[in-house]
Amino acid sequence: MTFPVVGMVGGGQLARMTHEAGIPLGIRFKLLSDTPQDSAAQVVGDVVIGDYRDLDTLRAFAQGCDVITFDHEHVPTEHLRALEADGIPVRPGPDALQHAQDKGVMRAKLMEIGVPCPRHRIVADPEDVAAFAAEGEGFPVILKTVRGGYDGKGVWVVRSVEDAADPFRAGVPVLAEEKVDFVRELAANVVRSPHGQAVAYPVVESRQVNGVCDTVIAPAPDLDEALALRAEEMALRIAKELDVVGHLAVELFQTRDGRILVNELAMRPHNSGHWSQDGAITSQFANHVRAVLDLPLGDPRPRAKWTVMVNVLGGDYPDMYSAYLHCMARDPKLKIHMYGKDVKPGRKVGHVNTYGDDLDDVLERARHAAGYLRGTITE
Amino acid sequence: MTFPVVGMVGGGQLARMTHEAGIPLGIRFKLLSDTPQDSAAQVVGDVVIGDYRDLDTLRAFAQGCDVITFDHEHVPTEHLRALEADGIPVRPGPDALQHAQDKGVMRAKLMEIGVPCPRHRIVADPEDVAAFAAEGEGFPVILKTVRGGYDGKGVWVVRSVEDAADPFRAGVPVLAEEKVDFVRELAANVVRSPHGQAVAYPVVESRQVNGVCDTVIAPAPDLDEALALRAEEMALRIAKELDVVGHLAVELFQTRDGRILVNELAMRPHNSGHWSQDGAITSQFANHVRAVLDLPLGDPRPRAKWTVMVNVLGGDYPDMYSAYLHCMARDPKLKIHMYGKDVKPGRKVGHVNTYGDDLDDVLERARHAAGYLRGTITE
Repeated sequence: MTFPVVGMVGGGQLARMTHEAGIPLGIRFKLLSDTPQDSAAQVVGDVVIGDYRDLDTLRAFAQGCDVITFDHEHVPTEHLRALEADGIPVRPGPDALQHAQDKGVMRAKLMEIGVPCPRHRIVADPEDVAAFAAEGEGFPVILKTVRGGYDGKGVWVVRSVEDAADPFRAGVPVLAEEKVDFVRELAANVVRSPHGQAVAYPVVESRQVNGVCDTVIAPAPDLDEALALRAEEMALRIAKELDVVGHLAVELFQTRDGRILVNELAMRPHNSGHWSQDGAITSQFANHVRAVLDLPLGDPRPRAKWTVMVNVLGGDYPDMYSAYLHCMARDPKLKIHMYGKDVKPGRKVGHVNTYGDDLDDVLERARHAAGYLRGTITE
Repeated sequence: MTFPVVGMVGGGQLARMTHEAGIPLGIRFKLLSDTPQDSAAQVVGDVVIGDYRDLDTLRAFAQGCDVITFDHEHVPTEHLRALEADGIPVRPGPDALQHAQDKGVMRAKLMEIGVPCPRHRIVADPEDVAAFAAEGEGFPVILKTVRGGYDGKGVWVVRSVEDAADPFRAGVPVLAEEKVDFVRELAANVVRSPHGQAVAYPVVESRQVNGVCDTVIAPAPDLDEALALRAEEMALRIAKELDVVGHLAVELFQTRDGRILVNELAMRPHNSGHWSQDGAITSQFANHVRAVLDLPLGDPRPRAKWTVMVNVLGGDYPDMYSAYLHCMARDPKLKIHMYGKDVKPGRKVGHVNTYGDDLDDVLERARHAAGYLRGTITE
């Protein structure tokens, strides 16, 4: 059967779970991975080991792929343009992807299309940060390198001009943003296909610990229906205006005064969408595959009243297997997702999903399992 | 992380879907496949191409595997005993597996433990078949080679002594069975682990067309609760008495007079359990992996009121991709499972699952999709 081949650049857990979702679709998967030990490289049949920053490697990899997509946003834009010039569909394309690669470009575009963002501007040096602070509510101010940050890396909360030197050391432009007075963080996940079909997942609540996603609740509890609709429409509009193909995660602040502001964009399956593997009719991974192949999209609606995802971070114990066994025995309904990665303290090595009618119970089960796997709960 | 490695012998769709289920569990998978084009070999990372009938090949393959399990029942019993003697856990083990490999051994054991079966005995030649018929209700009689049959192959419905010559030509012992006057076929699927934990899936109705499974409805509609419980208990008892480890499918006849008789046994994930991928909390594939690793089993209960599985058989069109696209567009809730196999008329190349509250709707959606993919429905 002449089913298409999806070329996935990057061997992390997002690629691993996208491959898993592609198996029932009958889609062939080809992986470009840094090492054979990477999370996805362990489970994919057709793996090329190579450096995604090298154009020749990318070009050779793209041979025999019907479309190229990504596990991360780090492939240089000029390489993506070169692949497109070679006639290889790249999804999302370089024009869209630059908004997820560069926070300065992202902010400029969102302002242009009238999407509410935190007050922000590119700053030149610590004195300029002080000027930015003085233009608004003063310190603290958030500083971000426009490129290369993720999971709290490349982000600083700066409380004085003396604090503001570090972010400038990397030689990357620095974006200053107001520290938003938010009540919670939300995420609006949508998937869009080249022919313009788009689906929206229910808006979720995302809780961070030390700048890293810890818990996601789907749908966001007690979220005003009009606000939820506004967030979904905003995400669909961003996807359209930026011509995103595939999964788009829009991370949002819900402010004390009832506004929603865009925090970050990610153009790939996203941690805030992992709940959909067990909680939605069609997972974000399956819909990402369908979108990049321009196949009709699957139903994104929830299967359960509540689904909770909690990340499993590496703790002090290098081997989780006995804890994993305990979690399975304690909760036969628990859905465990392990990434095959070596445990390092703080590293995302898996997540758990739980679902049901009673949010307190669903939350407790997910938190217990993730805490037990990490070693912070010993019962 | 020192998560275990499951060695899977056989590269068919059952291995493919077991690998898919093992990915979120973080389980490493090693495959012994006849060819690199086999269904599972396309999607597994660690593939050995070789002949499972060759002991040296099996021994080399078993190096580095924590347990060996199977996609089919064709590995010679003496090879399995040799692997066990080498210290490799084989699950299900050879003592259990022989009951799925040899219908004569299976019938003898079921009689010994008091499980109701169709009237049967080993027959020597066509005249003996006539004698067997005369001992009961006369012709027609079912003849089966005790080894090597599947999907209706190796099974004959014989209406006269003149018809009865073919089955004896293979030189394999032949089992005669009464043609049971059944109202429908059921299947009881259970999973059992080495430490004796066992779970039972709801009893399903299985509809065959030309001896091949066509449709499975979970749970079996209008099934008397006491009868369902009896079927589940029977399957759990067979699993225990035969010391089965992993998934056991017990195919049953429901007779006009309200009895249930065992038709066949399969000791691996089974077509009658494919519905569980989208319809149960834990799929048969995930529970098979958990069982062979002696991990606590997952909850087998249904997630939907009704789940229907319909097989997609190869039709006259070699390329299903455009039909597949149509099916996705027509029904965004449809769950498609393709096996990556070349289309040959009558060959199982995939299946579809649908679920919901209204059985008529769920059945119609699954039948339409499978028929459209096959080319028998063009709308």
